[in-house]
Amino acid sequence: MTATLIDGKVVSDKLLLELAHHVRGLHLRTQQDPGLAVVLVGDNPASRVYVESKKKACAKVGINSYDYRLSEADGEGALIELIQHLNGDPDVHGILVQLPLPDGFDDQKIIELIDPAKDVDGFHPMNVGRVWQGLSGFKSCTPYGVFELLRHYEIPVEGKHVVIIGRSNIVGKPLASILVQRGAGANATVTICHSKSENLVALTRSADILVAAIGVPGFVTAEMVRPGAVVVDVGINRVTDLNTKSGYRVVGDVDFNSVVPVAEAITPVPGGVGPMTIAMLIKNTVESFERHLAEE
Amino acid sequence: MTATLIDGKVVSDKLLLELAHHVRGLHLRTQQDPGLAVVLVGDNPASRVYVESKKKACAKVGINSYDYRLSEADGEGALIELIQHLNGDPDVHGILVQLPLPDGFDDQKIIELIDPAKDVDGFHPMNVGRVWQGLSGFKSCTPYGVFELLRHYEIPVEGKHVVIIGRSNIVGKPLASILVQRGAGANATVTICHSKSENLVALTRSADILVAAIGVPGFVTAEMVRPGAVVVDVGINRVTDLNTKSGYRVVGDVDFNSVVPVAEAITPVPGGVGPMTIAMLIKNTVESFERHLAEE
Repeated sequence: MTATLIDGKVVSDKLLLELAHHVRGLHLRTQQDPGLAVVLVGDNPASRVYVESKKKACAKVGINSYDYRLSEADGEGALIELIQHLNGDPDVHGILVQLPLPDGFDDQKIIELIDPAKDVDGFHPMNVGRVWQGLSGFKSCTPYGVFELLRHYEIPVEGKHVVIIGRSNIVGKPLASILVQRGAGANATVTICHSKSENLVALTRSADILVAAIGVPGFVTAEMVRPGAVVVDVGINRVTDLNTKSGYRVVGDVDFNSVVPVAEAITPVPGGVGPMTIAMLIKNTVESFERHLAEE
Repeated sequence: MTATLIDGKVVSDKLLLELAHHVRGLHLRTQQDPGLAVVLVGDNPASRVYVESKKKACAKVGINSYDYRLSEADGEGALIELIQHLNGDPDVHGILVQLPLPDGFDDQKIIELIDPAKDVDGFHPMNVGRVWQGLSGFKSCTPYGVFELLRHYEIPVEGKHVVIIGRSNIVGKPLASILVQRGAGANATVTICHSKSENLVALTRSADILVAAIGVPGFVTAEMVRPGAVVVDVGINRVTDLNTKSGYRVVGDVDFNSVVPVAEAITPVPGGVGPMTIAMLIKNTVESFERHLAEE
């Protein structure tokens, strides 16, 4: 037996193509386009790479992306002023502040200043709370991407036991939030475990769908997986590899080679959950734009 | 073997007494008292009973309670105006709108109009989101009461498997929210199961702490409980009993008599979780008052 590979590149490309058609249709009807403001503070090289790929995805879909770069020296006051300006800008339907912010900036304070109606990252407590309550609100992009991947591959979720390793605010908790709700593609039994969990192997082996989101390379090994389970690897870890040009390679939280023969399906790293995150950001931005149109 | 009875009446009385001392101390220092606005719309008899017991608890602790009664005919507009007034009233530190509201009133809309800083019920998405994110915010009273009961009886929670049956916004989800966080009395592995869950008995038998919050009398029977587990019964169900004066009696979601010989500890109904809910409302109100004092 060998696991089906869940291809996030294919699914995200398909989704972006659908969104591009949709945005074109909206443009023909309204002469308006969605707009995403991308705010980068400082010069973290990894953040720059993320920002570039988000802008590229916007271009593909027909979203105007507006670039804002602040230096660390501009200080939090300048960032606050910018966000207040963007909150009031009718051409901006989504505001993305690339995290983490440099030292001296309060990430949470900044997130809470973004108008929840433009918080396409789904990090504002208003959206986090509404999604957890089963109400409408922007879902965080990475867990939303996991949801879409499962849906696309028609992996049964309703009534199944989803075990999530990791309780972060970016993946573990918001994924539980999405999958436990009533509704199509959800309705799962959800377990969250973490570094303090006793009997971890018994827990993970009880999973129909096992999600690894801990940030430890190769943490999930074959004996932690019930044969036939679906394994979703949300980890993105750089490990040294002198055989590569960059000197590192990217691996997930799952010991891929040992788990592949046991699982029924698995997301590889890279090329699994990763590409979905940006696609869902784009989807949220288009959704925000449509709400804006509906209110006009 | 027979289970220890977890006595919510004793714990809540102790907590209210502590809060009364604390409020007296704050009064001596500041000449100010906490204030709770209790808003009742319509004449649901059960709601009236709840409102009366909340006011009584306020009186015990030294909180000024302000009574607002609207009739159904006053309409949602009058309620909205009242809430806006209370949001701005510096003598009011907590606003409680007794739910459910009559037909024609939108519960969620009303909740979201309450200033999150006065939402001592912990139902506003801002508080729900912040608590889920592990940040400061008002915790919903019933799950907060469960947390306090476990803490008071020194029941180990960290690393243990808490299985919650029921995914309501009042109990199941916010209890998961509290118990999964980092911190003393929490750090649990948490599973939420519900009506769609497959293999429910296997799930409930894997619990170190089993929480029933479904609203079905006697749903949890002995075979669903691992011997030695702690059982928390959040159900409050009226069942017909012609041997009583009222014609009914109140029972929980746990088949108490069958589970008592199996569990290590259990909350009875009535007298278990029930009395804790009001105590935690009072605690939240005092906390809100203290934040107000700190800002002066």
